Amino acid sequence: MVDILHRVGVKATVAEVYTAITTVEGLAAWWTTQTVGEGNEIGGVLKFRFIPGGFDMSVVELVPGKRVLWEVIDGPEEWIGTHIVWDLTQVDEWAIVNFRHEGWKEEVEFMSHCSTKWAIYLMSLKTLVETGLGAPAPDDVMISNWH
Amino acid sequence: MVDILHRVGVKATVAEVYTAITTVEGLAAWWTTQTVGEGNEIGGVLKFRFIPGGFDMSVVELVPGKRVLWEVIDGPEEWIGTHIVWDLTQVDEWAIVNFRHEGWKEEVEFMSHCSTKWAIYLMSLKTLVETGLGAPAPDDVMISNWH
Repeated sequence: MVDILHRVGVKATVAEVYTAITTVEGLAAWWTTQTVGEGNEIGGVLKFRFIPGGFDMSVVELVPGKRVLWEVIDGPEEWIGTHIVWDLTQVDEWAIVNFRHEGWKEEVEFMSHCSTKWAIYLMSLKTLVETGLGAPAPDDVMISNWH
Repeated sequence: MVDILHRVGVKATVAEVYTAITTVEGLAAWWTTQTVGEGNEIGGVLKFRFIPGGFDMSVVELVPGKRVLWEVIDGPEEWIGTHIVWDLTQVDEWAIVNFRHEGWKEEVEFMSHCSTKWAIYLMSLKTLVETGLGAPAPDDVMISNWH
């Protein structure tokens, strides 16, 4: 099992970041405009869609201002069963986001693509919370021929 | 052992990307302006400096247009002995960069930071090669309280 790890700091409170990752309005404003479902309830399902397809996540853990954990229940084969973990900590004026997309079966090229793409989306989350304007799909930053 | 993986596509030739990762002029224009040494010779040493410190790399493998491999010989304790591997492939008009920073002892928070930061620098490399203008340190994109 291998993992994608990232860490960003958002000049905001952990409560603001928590809202941006547990509400459809928040998620749609930094990840993909095509987001529907329920992110603020254990067992809720979030559906994220992009031009080539998408991901369905089941909300497994919710600790307000501290932790969110999703399990991928539908999407590309490599994603199914993996976990996405958000750990939040307030350090002075910074909300520190420790992000993990864990449980990949192997280090395939698609995993490398997703790793870079997660960094881009985390920067979109940071910008959204700090300025009010993120860069969600379909207007996200293109990184390669795989979008 | 755990690894940082990334994948970006640069609208250019692999030869152009290879130049940007094997010459001091190229490296200084996307990673850090404070770069000295020899990147285009096996056994050459590259010294990269940032405000808080830096990294020394020994050039271990060089296959023009295809592969570059560095071993970290000095820098933060977590980096020493790790390898940085650049695999390049031309896919139509895209130079695909498969990047690995491999051999981390454990998944520490500093590794998460470096993972996100590598994504930012790879986007700087992409922009440099595509437009002539990168964003190297000290004018790189800040991602958190750790810079």
